[in-house]
Order: sequence, then C-alpha cells, then structure tokens
Amino acid sequence: MRGIDAATLVVMAVLALPLAGRAADDQDIIDYRQHVMKTLNEQAAELGLILSTAVPGDNVTSHIDSLALAASISLKAFEPKVQGGEAKPEVWSNWPDFQKRMKDFAAKTAEMSKIAHEQGPDQALGMVIGALPCKSCHDLYRSEKK
Amino acid sequence: MRGIDAATLVVMAVLALPLAGRAADDQDIIDYRQHVMKTLNEQAAELGLILSTAVPGDNVTSHIDSLALAASISLKAFEPKVQGGEAKPEVWSNWPDFQKRMKDFAAKTAEMSKIAHEQGPDQALGMVIGALPCKSCHDLYRSEKK
Repeated sequence: MRGIDAATLVVMAVLALPLAGRAADDQDIIDYRQHVMKTLNEQAAELGLILSTAVPGDNVTSHIDSLALAASISLKAFEPKVQGGEAKPEVWSNWPDFQKRMKDFAAKTAEMSKIAHEQGPDQALGMVIGALPCKSCHDLYRSEKK
Repeated sequence: MRGIDAATLVVMAVLALPLAGRAADDQDIIDYRQHVMKTLNEQAAELGLILSTAVPGDNVTSHIDSLALAASISLKAFEPKVQGGEAKPEVWSNWPDFQKRMKDFAAKTAEMSKIAHEQGPDQALGMVIGALPCKSCHDLYRSEKK
C-alpha cells in the first residue's frame, strides 16, 4: 500500500471489477490483516494521547467504537493460514491459544464500547489496560519489522 | 509513533496520569489528526481489497462503520490551527472550503453506513466512489511525505 493513495486504490479496484473473480492471493490476505492491525494501532494510539491528556478527550467513545469494530474482525483476518507479514508461524501452530486471545480481545473491547455508551467515556477509559493486551499477544505472535 | 507499540504508549500514558494537565503541544495535535487520517487510509484500503475481490467481503459493514466513525471526527481533529505534518497551510487559510468538504465526507460516509445496515453491504459498496473523495481533497490540502 505504501505510496498508493487509498482513494486511488479504491478507484483502481472499481475499475478492476469487470475482471472480478480472481482468487485472493497470499499478499492480498497479508495486506488485509495488516490494515486491520494498523487500524487497531492507530486507534489505540489515539486513546493513548487522550489518556495522557496530550489531546482533549472529546472523541473517546468514537475511538473505543473503532477499536471494538476492528477487534471484532481481527481473528477472521488471520483465519487463512498464510504465513508472512509480521505474523509468526505460531499464530497457526498455536491456533487454539491465538484464537482464545483474539476472541477475548474482541469481547473486552465490545464491553468497553458498551460501557462507554451506557455509563460514559470516563468509565470506559478505566478499562483500557485490561481490554488492550496488545503487548502480551505481540510478544508471542508478532515479529515486528522495524 | 513509529517504533513504539501502541500498547506501550497506552501504558506510558496511564503511568503519566498523575502528571495530567499538561497542555496539548503541537506535535500531539499533529499526531492525533494523523492517527485519524491513517485510520481512514487503512479502512479505505480494506474496502479497495474487497471491491477488487482480492479478499472476501465478509466484513464490509464493519469497514464502512469504521470509516464513518473516523470521518465523523476528522474535521474536529483539524480545528486546532497547528501547521505541520502533511497538512498544507491552505487547510486553515481556506477553512470554509475545507470544513465544507470534511462535513460532506462525514455525511456521505454516515449515509453509506446507514445504507449498509438497512439495505445491505452491496448497496453501500456502490456508494464508495462518491463517499470517499480522498484524492480531490488531498490534492488541495495535503502535501504527502513519501
């Protein structure tokens, strides 16, 4: 994706529609899951800026909703057993554990979103550490490319 | 953000809470709006992959909801008049036009989300080109750093 504007990609994609039907190749699958994980990273960073009071917290609920949405599809993005990107082979060799962690992540962010809407953003922000166990999972399953 | 895991940032942010109260400095404001725009970029890319049939379209509605959420706060992220990042000075010198475009973008992605929920993802996908005028706005207001 680097160097290609997302809008350009969308236009290219739509122009390609008459050719539709090609199977997902491995790089497409890797790209797809990386866009999901990058969305999580961007939105977690927004909450970090808000929690540190670096920026005002006007949009806390939107950021939490965005995290919960991306979390809800993150496991599915890894279902195709395609090695590559920053995923370690353990994602698939330890699938039951990986799956459990991702489902737990989705459930906790969904709960945080529910609390944000029902009780307010401050209550939800108190759940951030428990709901975003990014590092514990990345330590096991991600080989970060610096 | 590069090189800092988002989870680490969240932990750092929470540890910094007792020091809370510092004013948003310019880099924080630039970081915040860049995370919003990057979220839009990642999610638009997901729709691009789906539209090209590169990956299955199981999560279309989630991606559209994610876009609509980020679009809904994107104007607010530019309200502080802080030059820098990839924003051209014209964002603020042409604020009425910039504001109109961003509000239009938010309204169109909200409508696309509504259609996705009420009529289904296929109907919503037909609205993508009209709802994501990324390039026309970036040509005027973004100076992309390659």
